[in-house]
Amino acid sequence: MNTREYVIEKAKAAKAASREMTTISSKVKNTALEAMAEALLSNKDLIIYENAKDIKNGKEKGLSQYMLDRLLLNEKRIMSMADGLRTVAALRDPIGEVLKMWKTENDLQIGQIRVPLGVIGMIYESRPNVTVDAAALCIKAGNAVILRGGSEAIHSNTALIQIIKKAAEENGLPKGCIQFIDITDRDAVNEMMTLNTYIDVLIPRGGAGLINTVVNNSTVPVIQTGVGNCHVFIDESADHTMAHDIVMNAKTQRPGVCNAIETILLHKNIAKEILPRLGESLISKGVQIRGCSKTREILKNIEQATEEDWAAEYLDYILAAKVVDSIDEAIEHIYKYGTNHSEAIITNDYNNSQRFLREIDASAVYVNASTRFTDGSQFGFGAEIGISTQKLHTRGPMGLEELTTIKYIIYGDGQIRD
Amino acid sequence: MNTREYVIEKAKAAKAASREMTTISSKVKNTALEAMAEALLSNKDLIIYENAKDIKNGKEKGLSQYMLDRLLLNEKRIMSMADGLRTVAALRDPIGEVLKMWKTENDLQIGQIRVPLGVIGMIYESRPNVTVDAAALCIKAGNAVILRGGSEAIHSNTALIQIIKKAAEENGLPKGCIQFIDITDRDAVNEMMTLNTYIDVLIPRGGAGLINTVVNNSTVPVIQTGVGNCHVFIDESADHTMAHDIVMNAKTQRPGVCNAIETILLHKNIAKEILPRLGESLISKGVQIRGCSKTREILKNIEQATEEDWAAEYLDYILAAKVVDSIDEAIEHIYKYGTNHSEAIITNDYNNSQRFLREIDASAVYVNASTRFTDGSQFGFGAEIGISTQKLHTRGPMGLEELTTIKYIIYGDGQIRD
Repeated sequence: MNTREYVIEKAKAAKAASREMTTISSKVKNTALEAMAEALLSNKDLIIYENAKDIKNGKEKGLSQYMLDRLLLNEKRIMSMADGLRTVAALRDPIGEVLKMWKTENDLQIGQIRVPLGVIGMIYESRPNVTVDAAALCIKAGNAVILRGGSEAIHSNTALIQIIKKAAEENGLPKGCIQFIDITDRDAVNEMMTLNTYIDVLIPRGGAGLINTVVNNSTVPVIQTGVGNCHVFIDESADHTMAHDIVMNAKTQRPGVCNAIETILLHKNIAKEILPRLGESLISKGVQIRGCSKTREILKNIEQATEEDWAAEYLDYILAAKVVDSIDEAIEHIYKYGTNHSEAIITNDYNNSQRFLREIDASAVYVNASTRFTDGSQFGFGAEIGISTQKLHTRGPMGLEELTTIKYIIYGDGQIRD
Repeated sequence: MNTREYVIEKAKAAKAASREMTTISSKVKNTALEAMAEALLSNKDLIIYENAKDIKNGKEKGLSQYMLDRLLLNEKRIMSMADGLRTVAALRDPIGEVLKMWKTENDLQIGQIRVPLGVIGMIYESRPNVTVDAAALCIKAGNAVILRGGSEAIHSNTALIQIIKKAAEENGLPKGCIQFIDITDRDAVNEMMTLNTYIDVLIPRGGAGLINTVVNNSTVPVIQTGVGNCHVFIDESADHTMAHDIVMNAKTQRPGVCNAIETILLHKNIAKEILPRLGESLISKGVQIRGCSKTREILKNIEQATEEDWAAEYLDYILAAKVVDSIDEAIEHIYKYGTNHSEAIITNDYNNSQRFLREIDASAVYVNASTRFTDGSQFGFGAEIGISTQKLHTRGPMGLEELTTIKYIIYGDGQIRD
């Protein structure tokens, strides 16, 4: 069987399973998710054994310490994946919720009911926990899922899938509702992108290269996730300590993720008071600062920021800094360089807070809080499958509801149209 | 300027206008829509004069009587377009609605607020009223719109755009919020499909050829509209008169539209009683019936239906008919041949009505009513821009709310992430 035939076979099986999924009760879905959690725990030795192969290969390939850490599965992380499954089991089932229902002039009763999307294709890169999280969320929302993980985690993913798929199918879920594509070159992705007959939506999660490939070539509708060139704007009226703490959190708590910030914008009337202490804290945490000329008048020993810096998603201990004349200049800068992900203002000015919330076009716009909260768990969704940066379908963290769609149900008693 | 440069220029202008649109009040939008209505009425002679050119060209090109009728604008139709603008002006503004807002454990207040999609590209074919309807809905929902109509209506569309654009811009809407692309060959469409930097969503409306081209090639997210192979299933317990009247309505009230039916499925225990009178009514209305062998045992003089008939969207006075053994066979048939548009069951059996509503995967599923109601106006949306047959973003008739997206707004008082 060639790659195309292989992928089509998996997609067809997922499509058939997705139809059965619509008739599965919440209770069965939850029981299966609990069983999947149990199965992970009772097979932890196998998982760790298989994961060790990926780690060994990763070291041989020269993966960075950071990448190796993302790849690693240990007892604690397996327990955390199992907890994730149980959390999803405990969430309210979104399927069957009637979002609204009304009566028309001619007495038709029209309702909008939440239904599964159908078949969801997940294309992702290194972290093996995505395999378990994505399967859990897709299933709970009544979907079948086709998982295609990256080559670095192939042994871990194969073991995880084998374990959760068996538990799912032995506990009442339709055979085939979790599909795994173990072809890790781009051919498999290329095939998935053409199968709009079987796959209802593709969610690519990973680097810009992967995401752009999928967005530019897929005939299957795509939810774009991803790139985050996020900013904090420190307004004239900002509380100094709050501004310091939020910038430190948003830059250094976990610099490698999309909701970390890459640039700070400082109102000119506050820059001199804020920058010295903030600069010191950042540098002591190992952050390299690249500033505009005005920033460099205050922080003498930093590099000059270039046009590329304003546009960069460093995902690293680097921060660009720019002094601006006004909130207007800050909004303009974000409009020009932002990626519509997460943006924050630190201010005590009511009008400016409202303007920022209204005029900034991003998935999540913050007043006086760290951008690091753009996350399904932090938002209270229980879990997330990714963060949408497009406008169609949904924006921001995607939890269970975002993996559903609606249909209209209409109760009549013989109505015909005039 | 070549086509690419021309389209990019329009798209850039729309993008700039879309940003201004977010700061325009409901009052200004409504005043502009009213002014656009007035402008259509006071320029009706010009519109009719320009439309006559399209009609003349259409006749020379040998367009069918049906197509010429779709193209025709007369005083009554211009008044109807003006009424449409006023209806949209009177609708509640969806922008700024907070869909939900909650507080997290750490006292962040997180809200989901409705915002415009941004720039909407509409690609459509013959009917010139789409120009006005689409502009009205897109603007009311706070978007900029790029309209690209078909060649048959080019004179009508050019006149309509000139009139409504002037009225819009003279009444407070940002310059450039309505863009018209008057290049009617496919090159302009091909360029629009590549501009995901400027265009947030493309909505193709028209024949299957156009829609497939856009779905298969666009890097801009697409809302697929369209193909409707719709069914009525007459269950064993159906009221005979109701079944007769609904089938007649769904097939013959307007056969050329996507929510008209193409196939009827009849339960075997009721076929003999229903078919003779229904067949007579259909034939007397000029409908050609193509039946399965069992249908032909009852209606002797009809053609045999082929595999192609079950899959066909005739959009014409042709109806396929099949006798089925059970609701299961009916559901299977619809699963196999349906296009997820509109499906109806006529029944008095409670369980069967619930099964049909649950198991049929379509934009709109009806019990005891005509499929012809799948329409924004009929649903009470005031107007519609098309009917989505995909699952991402929305399904079924698209009104104002469907032309919006959300963003998260977060009020904090210094929260940072642990």
